[in-house]
Amino acid sequence: MVLRSHALLSPKLHFRVLEFRVYTEETVFCFNSLTMAEDGVPPLDNLTLSDTVEEAAFSQRVPIRSILCRPDAGAGLAGQTLKVGGWVKKGREQGRGSFAFLELNDGSCPANLQLIIYADVAPLGQFTPTGTCLHVEGVLQMPPEDKQGKQSIELKVSKVLEVGTVDPAKYPLPKTQLTLEFLRDYVHLRPRTNTISAIARIRNALAYATHTFFQKHGFLYVHTPIITTSDCEGAGEMFQVTTLLNEAEKKAIKNPPASQEDVDLAKSVVKEKGEIVAKLKSDKAGKPEITAAVAELTKAKENLSMVEERFKPKDGKLDYGKDFFARQAFLTVSGQLQVETFACALSSVYTFGPTFRAEPSHTSRHLAEFWMVEPEIAFADIEDDMKCAEAYVRFLCQWLLDNCLDDMEFIADKFDKKAIERLKMVASTNFVRLSYTEAITILEEAVSKGQKFEHKVEWGIDLASEHEKYLTEIKFESPVIVYNYPKGIKAFYMKVNPDKKTVAAMDVLVPKVGELIGGSQREENYEVIKERILEMGLPLEPYEWYLDLRRYGTVKHSGFGLGFERMILFATGIDNIRDVIPFPRYPGRADL
Amino acid sequence: MVLRSHALLSPKLHFRVLEFRVYTEETVFCFNSLTMAEDGVPPLDNLTLSDTVEEAAFSQRVPIRSILCRPDAGAGLAGQTLKVGGWVKKGREQGRGSFAFLELNDGSCPANLQLIIYADVAPLGQFTPTGTCLHVEGVLQMPPEDKQGKQSIELKVSKVLEVGTVDPAKYPLPKTQLTLEFLRDYVHLRPRTNTISAIARIRNALAYATHTFFQKHGFLYVHTPIITTSDCEGAGEMFQVTTLLNEAEKKAIKNPPASQEDVDLAKSVVKEKGEIVAKLKSDKAGKPEITAAVAELTKAKENLSMVEERFKPKDGKLDYGKDFFARQAFLTVSGQLQVETFACALSSVYTFGPTFRAEPSHTSRHLAEFWMVEPEIAFADIEDDMKCAEAYVRFLCQWLLDNCLDDMEFIADKFDKKAIERLKMVASTNFVRLSYTEAITILEEAVSKGQKFEHKVEWGIDLASEHEKYLTEIKFESPVIVYNYPKGIKAFYMKVNPDKKTVAAMDVLVPKVGELIGGSQREENYEVIKERILEMGLPLEPYEWYLDLRRYGTVKHSGFGLGFERMILFATGIDNIRDVIPFPRYPGRADL
Repeated sequence: MVLRSHALLSPKLHFRVLEFRVYTEETVFCFNSLTMAEDGVPPLDNLTLSDTVEEAAFSQRVPIRSILCRPDAGAGLAGQTLKVGGWVKKGREQGRGSFAFLELNDGSCPANLQLIIYADVAPLGQFTPTGTCLHVEGVLQMPPEDKQGKQSIELKVSKVLEVGTVDPAKYPLPKTQLTLEFLRDYVHLRPRTNTISAIARIRNALAYATHTFFQKHGFLYVHTPIITTSDCEGAGEMFQVTTLLNEAEKKAIKNPPASQEDVDLAKSVVKEKGEIVAKLKSDKAGKPEITAAVAELTKAKENLSMVEERFKPKDGKLDYGKDFFARQAFLTVSGQLQVETFACALSSVYTFGPTFRAEPSHTSRHLAEFWMVEPEIAFADIEDDMKCAEAYVRFLCQWLLDNCLDDMEFIADKFDKKAIERLKMVASTNFVRLSYTEAITILEEAVSKGQKFEHKVEWGIDLASEHEKYLTEIKFESPVIVYNYPKGIKAFYMKVNPDKKTVAAMDVLVPKVGELIGGSQREENYEVIKERILEMGLPLEPYEWYLDLRRYGTVKHSGFGLGFERMILFATGIDNIRDVIPFPRYPGRADL
Repeated sequence: MVLRSHALLSPKLHFRVLEFRVYTEETVFCFNSLTMAEDGVPPLDNLTLSDTVEEAAFSQRVPIRSILCRPDAGAGLAGQTLKVGGWVKKGREQGRGSFAFLELNDGSCPANLQLIIYADVAPLGQFTPTGTCLHVEGVLQMPPEDKQGKQSIELKVSKVLEVGTVDPAKYPLPKTQLTLEFLRDYVHLRPRTNTISAIARIRNALAYATHTFFQKHGFLYVHTPIITTSDCEGAGEMFQVTTLLNEAEKKAIKNPPASQEDVDLAKSVVKEKGEIVAKLKSDKAGKPEITAAVAELTKAKENLSMVEERFKPKDGKLDYGKDFFARQAFLTVSGQLQVETFACALSSVYTFGPTFRAEPSHTSRHLAEFWMVEPEIAFADIEDDMKCAEAYVRFLCQWLLDNCLDDMEFIADKFDKKAIERLKMVASTNFVRLSYTEAITILEEAVSKGQKFEHKVEWGIDLASEHEKYLTEIKFESPVIVYNYPKGIKAFYMKVNPDKKTVAAMDVLVPKVGELIGGSQREENYEVIKERILEMGLPLEPYEWYLDLRRYGTVKHSGFGLGFERMILFATGIDNIRDVIPFPRYPGRADL
């Protein structure tokens, strides 16, 4: 069995299709895009449209990517009839209104497919406004020879299947360049812009790369809880999750607060009913009569106590016993402690989910809702942890280069000329490793040579952003892992080193964003971690389950957390974190 | 180039390793486990340990799966020295305490590796209790010939690296079989049990299969928000997310509610300060003196109004303008409406994340926090939607058969003998498709032939669970898709059919759990959907952004939602949904 000759992969065009199957007499071979990128010679010369449009099976369109992002830039498909759908980026009538050129984008890739539509097919005016949705059938054709090279294959429209029109006078996203800030007021429409759609594809690629990396290495994905009754760090500003307010408001409507008069009235009723009972008794009335009067008195007393209850100014404490979970519940700030329970049973695990901070930060680096990737590895020490973090970050960078280069080229061109260079550098560089103590020495040396820092450098400080940037951007021009931080500035669960002064914590610093990953070996010794909890002034009781992991079959283990949006900021060079998550949540804003 | 001869894949053993690379002079071939399962002849005879333990790169152990779950059941590895780590399932001393057999499990597969350890290596007593954690080095050896066939390769321990001991008198999970209900009180330890760990691996496999399926078909993964200010169906019981309670409680501590005496006291201070000012004025005192006295009066007045504010019984309404997002915010019940904004720009998208319902349901089918998979496809109608749903469910079933058969065999043996048969049936069967009207006719016929239902059958009802089960389990013994439901029982966003009586909704029903998927074509016509919102008595304002998708470049689109835990219930035959999610949340319970 010999495979047929290979077509060259155009260096400008990249497959996002993840896997190809080549069928032979003997077996089925799979090629994925990584393989292709590696040797550059995929066996694709006999590829037909149907090989690349499996993805179109559930949609009445051929993705534009399947047409344009082929080694032959679509040339081999000339003459084929197919349906495409998408939104018009730019449209213009030509030849005195006899035909129109429309640039169509369907979000499958940054490139647009050029449509040419003649006036005898349909009236042209409705198609040209930016934002118009079109679903058409047509024939792929090479442009006239004098335009070849400048322009790839185009579609001559033979039939318009559906149109979603736009009134250009009202459409909030006109053709003109809009700022990212302006677009934040239109989160429901901004995915239609070149920038936000490119970021969405990059985000998608990084998410799938994350799963692929960990699955490849035998990690199991664990869904840690979003609603939690534990506070991971014992420090976070947490959102509370409750059904009490709804209840309280419903009650307030049915049962408004009482006034002094309400109370006085209820009291007088009790008095009156009491007097009736007393009178009946002294009159030696019949038993049924007295029973009835007593029942009325009881009812009046119950009413009084209800009214008094409503009158009493509340002491501000809610009865969480009546809340949905019968206790106070919060949105998680990290899945780490919970995922440790799975690491202490399934060995290599990771979680990838939303986390929350109720900090009222208005910076370009903070969100109230963001996504975190948190692997946790049993039988692993801080060295293994650093190895894993480095391999993961490098894998992500290489993945973007292999699977998203067209989007990266667009972003680099528009926002950060160095973005691709940075990805290549990180993918191919061994990360520098420094102990915290070494890092402080380097920073002190820099200060002595005239480097200015706002925050004082001395052993024991938490590294400030400016220090991290100095290390990774100026001193080493490379990703840097700093490890063995002072015990006093780190969380209780981090393993105390033999020097008793430092803990086996590590941070991965990268150019552009600074800290990308924070991790540590976890303290697995029961006595030591118990001591640490108390030392931090935390109560033991909420951590009993966590202590159980050390009581019963304890295991050396390590893990880290990567802020997913930070990774996107790093990859793209975009400045504001609100632009790299589909629906940003921050103080005062939670649109949709 | 010719590949070398093939080893036969043992039908009982299955690779979870997702991809193999075979290097030749010409290129690199990738084989994944699907390929292997298909032809059963993977090119594995020259496979060494290092080929299967890439996953161990960040952990000081070789996963037990890499040893036992090979076509040769590990036999080819005899003589190799390696490290393993895991937890003892069963241990027994033998030969009058001269050696011990330990069954070690590391969570990488259901199978245990047998360790043999001699007393001269370490005292044996500490190793045998169930739950002990062991990290050891040893040599793989074939068991004595008379035991071969019964037992696979074992590890002779040469060095104990680390032990995490267990006091068997205190360990909550002794060797004896424990009920799933009992285990719910130990969510932090239950992953160590055979059942919960098998479910965790099945859940992991289904999650990765989900991403793989959609990525393969060109869908982009979109993170829809968890905190939302929209209510998808306009009906859900939602959890509220707030920082007001914390604030209110902090304030209550600093500033407790006032009593009548507090108010009287504050009033008397105002009166006194007022008299002083009056007196100074009538005495024609100096300006500085009067200014000072007026300032004191102002302060006393401010204090009074604060005290009065604290005294006032609250009217039960909170000022959400002061909440974190400056309005009421909730936990999402579905990402559908938000993911539609991306479908109307990127064409094929999906979301996979946690969703929430604050229903006080105590059933075995409801959770307050659960995961949903929601694809949304532009240029797709209800037919495409059904095609996608069917392909996805069949892909999931085939994936489990190909990648998790060992776990499925364990679960089937213990909980549901039909589980594997059911997966095979669904993976290989074309789903039956019925209109709702046809389904009602079938049910009515069944009734006329003596079938008993608790709920009356007539056109217009929502199908009850018993009806769904009849269709899928009795009538067709196959997955069934019911489509075109009466308008009156479905949500406002579903596309109204030309008959004006039904909407283009569809449900996928499967044996064992009934409804697994609910989906629909979405109404893309602006006028019609606006009408429907009003018809349902919903306000328009909160849906303006949703209407914008129809105002500007509207597109035919469809989507569905799959309850992820329901899929696990279906696959495993486990009865209670609380056992198929790592950290179940339901009324009164949110452990950890």
